[in-house]
Amino acid sequence: MTEGRVYNFSAGPSVLPEPVLQRARAEMMNYRGTGMSVMEMSHRSPAFSEIFTETKEKFRSMLRIPDSHEILFLQGGATLQFAAVPMNLMEGKTADYAVTGNFSGKAAKEAEKYGTVRLACNTEACGHSRIPAQEELCLNPDAKYFYYCSNNTIYGTEWQYVPQTAAPLVCDMSSDILSRPVDVARYGLIFAGAQKNMAPAGLTVVIADRSLTGRELPYTPQIMSYKTMIEHDSLLNTPPCWCIYMLSLVLDWLQEQGGVEGMEQGKRERAKLVYDFLDGSRLFRAHAEPGSRSDMNVTFRTGDDGLDAEFIAFAARRGLVNLKGHKIAGGMRASLYNAMPLEGAGELVRTMKEFERKHV
Amino acid sequence: MTEGRVYNFSAGPSVLPEPVLQRARAEMMNYRGTGMSVMEMSHRSPAFSEIFTETKEKFRSMLRIPDSHEILFLQGGATLQFAAVPMNLMEGKTADYAVTGNFSGKAAKEAEKYGTVRLACNTEACGHSRIPAQEELCLNPDAKYFYYCSNNTIYGTEWQYVPQTAAPLVCDMSSDILSRPVDVARYGLIFAGAQKNMAPAGLTVVIADRSLTGRELPYTPQIMSYKTMIEHDSLLNTPPCWCIYMLSLVLDWLQEQGGVEGMEQGKRERAKLVYDFLDGSRLFRAHAEPGSRSDMNVTFRTGDDGLDAEFIAFAARRGLVNLKGHKIAGGMRASLYNAMPLEGAGELVRTMKEFERKHV
Repeated sequence: MTEGRVYNFSAGPSVLPEPVLQRARAEMMNYRGTGMSVMEMSHRSPAFSEIFTETKEKFRSMLRIPDSHEILFLQGGATLQFAAVPMNLMEGKTADYAVTGNFSGKAAKEAEKYGTVRLACNTEACGHSRIPAQEELCLNPDAKYFYYCSNNTIYGTEWQYVPQTAAPLVCDMSSDILSRPVDVARYGLIFAGAQKNMAPAGLTVVIADRSLTGRELPYTPQIMSYKTMIEHDSLLNTPPCWCIYMLSLVLDWLQEQGGVEGMEQGKRERAKLVYDFLDGSRLFRAHAEPGSRSDMNVTFRTGDDGLDAEFIAFAARRGLVNLKGHKIAGGMRASLYNAMPLEGAGELVRTMKEFERKHV
Repeated sequence: MTEGRVYNFSAGPSVLPEPVLQRARAEMMNYRGTGMSVMEMSHRSPAFSEIFTETKEKFRSMLRIPDSHEILFLQGGATLQFAAVPMNLMEGKTADYAVTGNFSGKAAKEAEKYGTVRLACNTEACGHSRIPAQEELCLNPDAKYFYYCSNNTIYGTEWQYVPQTAAPLVCDMSSDILSRPVDVARYGLIFAGAQKNMAPAGLTVVIADRSLTGRELPYTPQIMSYKTMIEHDSLLNTPPCWCIYMLSLVLDWLQEQGGVEGMEQGKRERAKLVYDFLDGSRLFRAHAEPGSRSDMNVTFRTGDDGLDAEFIAFAARRGLVNLKGHKIAGGMRASLYNAMPLEGAGELVRTMKEFERKHV
């Protein structure tokens, strides 16, 4: 790691690969002989059109997205998708929502504005510490879609299977997209905010089965209509150009690291290091139950809020920052996204060990 | 200008001040000792919170925004505001729209989804070459607001006065915000996409009179509700952090150049250079009528499409790029935003003169 840089465990926006930042810096004043920064380019210029098209192609190839599915580069984050999904797919009727954390809960609440929401599950009573099994899901045959969030950043749980449902699957993959292969054909719609595994905040990627689009409610704003945005190849209005460029650089880096298969191996190694330590620790304990644990966000605590705060400060003095858990969950959270090197996870374990020795 | 850089006359995204890009580059890997890029910062971190708060304060101070008005940093561009404005302010009733160009026309069309749109004027018949006078505006006493776009990038016209209306004024200032002082108290709502005079694409600034908010339609998505976003100080979800940081650097630069008063003087000088030449030219002629002309976007043509294309290529070979007019207007367009140096306008005139000598 370059001198002065830290290990940044932020849940999002989060660490970006250092070679990506270096490349962006090198191209900042004059992108490949154009005489300008990517930030200054018309979104209709040949230079930016090339970036846009190549990024889409790299993304499609990386996740092996079938031709039945369109890729959209949008704005507004997952939060705008919480409304866009029901506006486009619910037809004013009903949909099933699996509530396994904060963001799926928010999505369900927003969807109530546009139709009838039925909960396929709600893990609130157990502090969202586990993901329900397939047979625990309560499925409505009339549902226009089944909605879930594949990874819960706040509670540190992750779906280890793809739900089997009659209704099309809609999945918020904001915090684990590009961390593993995905069988995209099984999904009606996937969306993800970029600021965890893909690019800086400000870009939302949507992968939509074309055959599900075109049924939006009449008051759907133009840029929230999947059909309209597909017709305009995301360029009805000015897209978040810089974030798309950064995604392009991240995809190049990811390809060099072995693509999503490489990312999957890397995330397993990082998470195993940390969970193995936690399961044997006399001071720290993991929040999520085995079988539901996220490789992306490891949540843990000592059981003593004061000691948690002490540990967070202790780690920060050693250059391991943003380990504080989300305010609604408390404790600690180590986000181990694609761009976190294995050494970062190793440093975290060494730091926990050292702290443990002093306090047990 | 740094070697290799061009004069970029793009209408948006457009040229940024060179010192701003240099500063962003210098801070790219490690922002002021935090050990990370601004692109990697949690939007809730102390470092980013400081950037966020300071940017808001600098913006308020720069435009002398009264306490009655809130500043929001949003996503989705002006196009999402075309829906957000009627969703929040029309109450399903009616509003007046002054259609003086492409984007006000689009805004009026989008608003029809949410209530009854009445046109206060429509300059389409004259090719949007002029802005109507106050007495030409057809005002409806029942209008919930009066909507206009202060500068038309495509046709190169700009309102030289603030309309007097009983209904609150709503203004799309995407292409002339920060180019002159504005009496914000006269407006109910101002919005602007950042990618012309403020920052890279992906940020939308809204300035809203608090007393007009809270009347949104029930199906308004959370992040499109001005009231909700005011309550969360724009941080209901992750904002476009990098663009906000870039805006902060642009505001610093702008302050050094004399603020909006300095910008107003600069834009007048640049535009005068170009219009004076056009009015005396035997080859080129300006599209917009005197009294309606934009200082931000100068539209002109030779009257011969082939010759226009030749000029655009001629200028590009001299490092003056993106002079092609918008496809629906044709001809040429020179965008002279805040970050365009006076020398850029001078070079443009010299290039037009040289071309004229060869062709007249």
